[in-house]
Amino acid sequence: MQLDSFLRAALDEDIGWGDITTEVCVPADTLIVGRFVAKEDLVVCGLDIVRRVFALLSDRVMLTPRAADGDAVTKGTVIADITGPAHPVLMGERVALNFLERLSGIATRTRDLRRAVEGAKARVTDTRKTTPGMRTLEKYAVRAGGGANHRMGLSDGVLIKDNHIAASGGITAAVRRAKAAAPHTLKIEVEASNLDQVAEALNAGADIIMLDNMDAGMMAEAVRLADGRALMEASGNMGDKNLAHIAASGVDLISVGALTHTVRAADISLQVETM
Amino acid sequence: MQLDSFLRAALDEDIGWGDITTEVCVPADTLIVGRFVAKEDLVVCGLDIVRRVFALLSDRVMLTPRAADGDAVTKGTVIADITGPAHPVLMGERVALNFLERLSGIATRTRDLRRAVEGAKARVTDTRKTTPGMRTLEKYAVRAGGGANHRMGLSDGVLIKDNHIAASGGITAAVRRAKAAAPHTLKIEVEASNLDQVAEALNAGADIIMLDNMDAGMMAEAVRLADGRALMEASGNMGDKNLAHIAASGVDLISVGALTHTVRAADISLQVETM
Amino acid sequence: MQLDSFLRAALDEDIGWGDITTEVCVPADTLIVGRFVAKEDLVVCGLDIVRRVFALLSDRVMLTPRAADGDAVTKGTVIADITGPAHPVLMGERVALNFLERLSGIATRTRDLRRAVEGAKARVTDTRKTTPGMRTLEKYAVRAGGGANHRMGLSDGVLIKDNHIAASGGITAAVRRAKAAAPHTLKIEVEASNLDQVAEALNAGADIIMLDNMDAGMMAEAVRLADGRALMEASGNMGDKNLAHIAASGVDLISVGALTHTVRAADISLQVETM
Amino acid sequence: MQLDSFLRAALDEDIGWGDITTEVCVPADTLIVGRFVAKEDLVVCGLDIVRRVFALLSDRVMLTPRAADGDAVTKGTVIADITGPAHPVLMGERVALNFLERLSGIATRTRDLRRAVEGAKARVTDTRKTTPGMRTLEKYAVRAGGGANHRMGLSDGVLIKDNHIAASGGITAAVRRAKAAAPHTLKIEVEASNLDQVAEALNAGADIIMLDNMDAGMMAEAVRLADGRALMEASGNMGDKNLAHIAASGVDLISVGALTHTVRAADISLQVETM
Amino acid sequence: MQLDSFLRAALDEDIGWGDITTEVCVPADTLIVGRFVAKEDLVVCGLDIVRRVFALLSDRVMLTPRAADGDAVTKGTVIADITGPAHPVLMGERVALNFLERLSGIATRTRDLRRAVEGAKARVTDTRKTTPGMRTLEKYAVRAGGGANHRMGLSDGVLIKDNHIAASGGITAAVRRAKAAAPHTLKIEVEASNLDQVAEALNAGADIIMLDNMDAGMMAEAVRLADGRALMEASGNMGDKNLAHIAASGVDLISVGALTHTVRAADISLQVETM
Amino acid sequence: MQLDSFLRAALDEDIGWGDITTEVCVPADTLIVGRFVAKEDLVVCGLDIVRRVFALLSDRVMLTPRAADGDAVTKGTVIADITGPAHPVLMGERVALNFLERLSGIATRTRDLRRAVEGAKARVTDTRKTTPGMRTLEKYAVRAGGGANHRMGLSDGVLIKDNHIAASGGITAAVRRAKAAAPHTLKIEVEASNLDQVAEALNAGADIIMLDNMDAGMMAEAVRLADGRALMEASGNMGDKNLAHIAASGVDLISVGALTHTVRAADISLQVETM
Repeated sequence: MQLDSFLRAALDEDIGWGDITTEVCVPADTLIVGRFVAKEDLVVCGLDIVRRVFALLSDRVMLTPRAADGDAVTKGTVIADITGPAHPVLMGERVALNFLERLSGIATRTRDLRRAVEGAKARVTDTRKTTPGMRTLEKYAVRAGGGANHRMGLSDGVLIKDNHIAASGGITAAVRRAKAAAPHTLKIEVEASNLDQVAEALNAGADIIMLDNMDAGMMAEAVRLADGRALMEASGNMGDKNLAHIAASGVDLISVGALTHTVRAADISLQVETM
Repeated sequence: MQLDSFLRAALDEDIGWGDITTEVCVPADTLIVGRFVAKEDLVVCGLDIVRRVFALLSDRVMLTPRAADGDAVTKGTVIADITGPAHPVLMGERVALNFLERLSGIATRTRDLRRAVEGAKARVTDTRKTTPGMRTLEKYAVRAGGGANHRMGLSDGVLIKDNHIAASGGITAAVRRAKAAAPHTLKIEVEASNLDQVAEALNAGADIIMLDNMDAGMMAEAVRLADGRALMEASGNMGDKNLAHIAASGVDLISVGALTHTVRAADISLQVETM
Repeated sequence: MQLDSFLRAALDEDIGWGDITTEVCVPADTLIVGRFVAKEDLVVCGLDIVRRVFALLSDRVMLTPRAADGDAVTKGTVIADITGPAHPVLMGERVALNFLERLSGIATRTRDLRRAVEGAKARVTDTRKTTPGMRTLEKYAVRAGGGANHRMGLSDGVLIKDNHIAASGGITAAVRRAKAAAPHTLKIEVEASNLDQVAEALNAGADIIMLDNMDAGMMAEAVRLADGRALMEASGNMGDKNLAHIAASGVDLISVGALTHTVRAADISLQVETM
Repeated sequence: MQLDSFLRAALDEDIGWGDITTEVCVPADTLIVGRFVAKEDLVVCGLDIVRRVFALLSDRVMLTPRAADGDAVTKGTVIADITGPAHPVLMGERVALNFLERLSGIATRTRDLRRAVEGAKARVTDTRKTTPGMRTLEKYAVRAGGGANHRMGLSDGVLIKDNHIAASGGITAAVRRAKAAAPHTLKIEVEASNLDQVAEALNAGADIIMLDNMDAGMMAEAVRLADGRALMEASGNMGDKNLAHIAASGVDLISVGALTHTVRAADISLQVETM
Repeated sequence: MQLDSFLRAALDEDIGWGDITTEVCVPADTLIVGRFVAKEDLVVCGLDIVRRVFALLSDRVMLTPRAADGDAVTKGTVIADITGPAHPVLMGERVALNFLERLSGIATRTRDLRRAVEGAKARVTDTRKTTPGMRTLEKYAVRAGGGANHRMGLSDGVLIKDNHIAASGGITAAVRRAKAAAPHTLKIEVEASNLDQVAEALNAGADIIMLDNMDAGMMAEAVRLADGRALMEASGNMGDKNLAHIAASGVDLISVGALTHTVRAADISLQVETM
Repeated sequence: MQLDSFLRAALDEDIGWGDITTEVCVPADTLIVGRFVAKEDLVVCGLDIVRRVFALLSDRVMLTPRAADGDAVTKGTVIADITGPAHPVLMGERVALNFLERLSGIATRTRDLRRAVEGAKARVTDTRKTTPGMRTLEKYAVRAGGGANHRMGLSDGVLIKDNHIAASGGITAAVRRAKAAAPHTLKIEVEASNLDQVAEALNAGADIIMLDNMDAGMMAEAVRLADGRALMEASGNMGDKNLAHIAASGVDLISVGALTHTVRAADISLQVETM
């Protein structure tokens, strides 16, 4: 439901008072057939959004998907067919592509990183470094690409960082406070940047420990220290190159900000003919 | 005014029911001082947004900019100081950075492309390939980086593309329709992919001609053909490499979708200490 | 889409907690048939709004137009038939008429002024002197009456008035600034109140010149001076009496604030019978 | 509170992406002084709206009223002074005037009609024939002009019209239903078009009787018949000419749709100088 | 229409980012059949809300009522059947019950109090002591239980309380002011706490008199004093025990804050089986 | 921020077009002083809401708390003083009390139940059986009364109930699915109604087990079975009488729907005098 109002805002943002060019140049009864085509290898994500964008403009546009969200397709693949009156198709084209290309870009990147850790047990997760307004969709794209979600926001997870630790008077005190006052349904995660902090967090009863900017060696040490008492999460400037190393350290989770803070739109075009 | 409601939505998206960790671990009267620091060379953009994000959370947070939007700064530069109660500073940190890093990323990329065409008369402009919800801000970041804006949306510019031409029965007919029916305050732009179309658009009285996916040689030919009768805009997969060539063809405008469809967040961090 | 939320607000404004009288006096299963009848000669405008108003109240009300927006009809003409449950018809009646009568009033007045300039080339255009909240609809009514639209608002046209000129240091400087900084898709219009200013604006390269409160003679002079280099727009207290004179001066556009700042609702009634 | 969001919508409607002309031509630090001047004799209404419009744009614009809502002023009178940064003053000018001129127009017209019934006991009231979105403001303008308000909408008054009577099986039955089911805090009004209906409504215990389209003689008869048992309201195409006659019939109320369905904007201008 | 946006907000409040448990554990194509069952004797209220809650989540959920709002049912009665996809049924269950149980609780309590005054002429009415956001629905539940509504809010009734009297300089002055300035469609009610005040209010021409915290004897006296000239309303901590006594005093209305300020949710469960 | 828009809606709901009585009877410059007084022993909750309600109406109303949220006060205690213009104080009174009385009622009830389990380790928690629109506030009131919060909604906790178990093919399968697909930051809770289910949930690795409608004896058995491997939560028609028994079984949590599904407004009055 929130999605609809976001899509409406996106359409308003582009259409404003109306699509003058189309209104002026294209007769109102013109029909159109078209195809969304992948212009490169990619993982598809956003077909429901595309359908909904056009549905908000007209109930006469028909979108027929030829792939599903999460499918890896090769260059040239037709992702979906579209038919309907020319006006709503042309008016919604750019907004639909702006969603589809961004979400497919995120899904594709996630898939690539997942491959880099193939064979290891670690999940690749996102972070809160998402585009304002797009978080739910971007986190959906991460799942479509085979990744997992970290907490959605500040209220559905306890993550004790250095500032919280300083303000509480240490890791042990911070975890104690969180256990006493946070809802019992949430796990408690603590950020650690060296092995002493890992040890203290384990002793305090943390459920998850975020290993912040450690090298793969120290991470392996931390994993041994934990010995299954807590989930171990690798974090901090994770890139393609070091990912396999880090996964080999035995961590349970690798969280990657770049999945959403750096987005390359996948290249998809809508090819149409008027009838 | 619309900005405020977008910022509120962005804060709601992240904060949800509340920042449990901060509420539980950080005493309500803790004060904080901090610095936004550039972690790489970049063009700053978004400081007013950052100020407004914190203002929506508390009227006691004070942001003191050390740079202005559009300034190029080097790695390590302090962009702004911040002081205030710890709760709103920690609650707004991620959202503020999500805006600041994205907008600075766009401004930085625009500056880089502007440099690539230094000396030529061509403006570098954006397109409508923006992130849904973020168009006004992203187009502002393009200006901060020294670029120019193309039309904001479908209602403040007439841009006759191939589908409009086909539906109208040719370029001449399409331009005639647009002149008769569009508001007289808007210029009329026509997309052309070869020199015959350029010639027809010129004869029809187009104010701007978009040269779509032409090579630099054909563009130079088109510029000669136009001889000042219309603005000439280069378009289509503009990248760093071919930009100088294209600018040398004498076009007035180069529109670059990648300015906004592919965003790399600039690396900026908020370093804080509690007091 | 924005229209729906405006119509909902208009219905809320009138209906509040509910239509007590109808709920209390009219059995819920009562059906109604009715006719919207012109009580004077008029140009119809607003039938889609009327349909939408009732659609928001019930999906069982059926509106069958007997005329189209823009049609001139004589007193006594049935504009539309309506049938459906009595409750939504009676609840929506006043709001529907409030729209239909105002928009038809504007369309009718525009038609009258258009007739006054019949044979001349000048378009009759509206201004920004519209009723707050109703601009899109009122500008639509102007088109329905055969008029043309000026810019919709401050962001889709550059119109340099005396204050802008004073602040820029003259017409030439103001136009230069606008050319350098405004999007290239917008024409640049300059307000002039004497022939010297017209000349300066032409030399500066203005695309449109607004002749403000000139008499028809001076306007003709200005038109000669321009000689097709810019569109010439007559403006300032345009009334029925002087319109033909002004049109004869050869201007391209005559903008008339009174089209929308002074609205006489056309007289239309809904005549119903319960079944 | 609802007012603010309506004013914001009105500003958005006009400003859109921004006031390009002012941003481009007027330096950001330019200051302005100005005066709102009556260009004809009028009753002022809307000064609080004007102040609020500018307050929503900037907290540095200062409006100093020289008159109060409801004051009758002569041509040339300065209604208010304004000073502040040029940008928000120029951006808000048109919206502020669109409100001020319309509301003053309604207040002025109401004052004129009130004068026409001077000496008689009848109140002049408005109706529900208001501009969608503007009802609260327009009814406020009626009060500023010395008129009184009829019900605000369908939920704060019971008004039994011919369709309700037909559906209920007669006036007596309709009033009985309303007495049984409507909240006891609301009076019950019945529309009557002849003396028999007046008599039946009186006997049924109506609190108010609307005399619909009767001539002044029949109204006087109806007033005698009622003899103080109910308030008597004259209604139906009330104009300047017949108003005194009708008032002389002894009715308590005269409701005039034209107060709000036909609005002539009063002529007010904002004269500014930049500093 | 306002209802839909309130229901959407209620669903957002509960569902947030999504019903993780259902999404993860229940296959998307699972179908469900269920029954809303009364777990105690109660008066049903809220079935349309329940239907609408599920309709907002999916157009494939079908609700088939087995009772109507206002029906008294015994423990064990099936109030409605429901079938549809498991996801929307499970996601909407809690919100639907939160409405249905509260509204049925209010209707049941109203019915009980109505029984306590059976035979007397007095209406049992609600007050403005409702749950924020729920007033329209709670007042609807009062009607479903056989009660009547007092004014909906501050704008559809004049109720002069002790503070208003003090500020006006006495009951007589306050009523005179109200008669002069309030819309003529509203009755004027005055709060009185002794017989002198009742007498003064009657003489001033009050339409309704609220007998505040009087005992039944004084109320009977007041009713005699009024002798039909005004409606007499008993108010102030009305409970089950004294209600019959008070009704016997001959008052026209008994307003009971506890109808809505103290709500016991009726016990209703949704029993489902997956198919 | 969401709170403000909810408070605005609550004020709109009550005030509508305006507080006619106050506007008509109370001079605009009247000042008022008042006291919020407890009319019974209670736990205070909602003072910030009260302050915000008046702040939304006027910046000249001053609220001075004499107690803090969570304080237990005795009958007759002054909770807060208020001074300011009479208009906003009288207009906001009912809405402010509607919040304050409900929230204090919930806090008081929570405190009572907490006392009933004094000495035991069990937390008393709320459920999702809250009033639509009021969840955040009601859960805040539970904390003010010394209770703890369960999950806020469907997205910040995994709670596997009988329907989820049936659809998944058993507890073990359901927990496995949840572990694989839900965010790793959330604990997994399983509903069990007998000891076999408790054992299966423990073996599957559930983090929390909800003991549904068990007697205290079976609960003690379950606690022994768990032996600290999972949090044990008692649930199902928890009332004052059986609470101590249940707490004695050694459970960690007792969730009580009645904390919010059955609300008795605490009795608080605003006593004012005009100055």
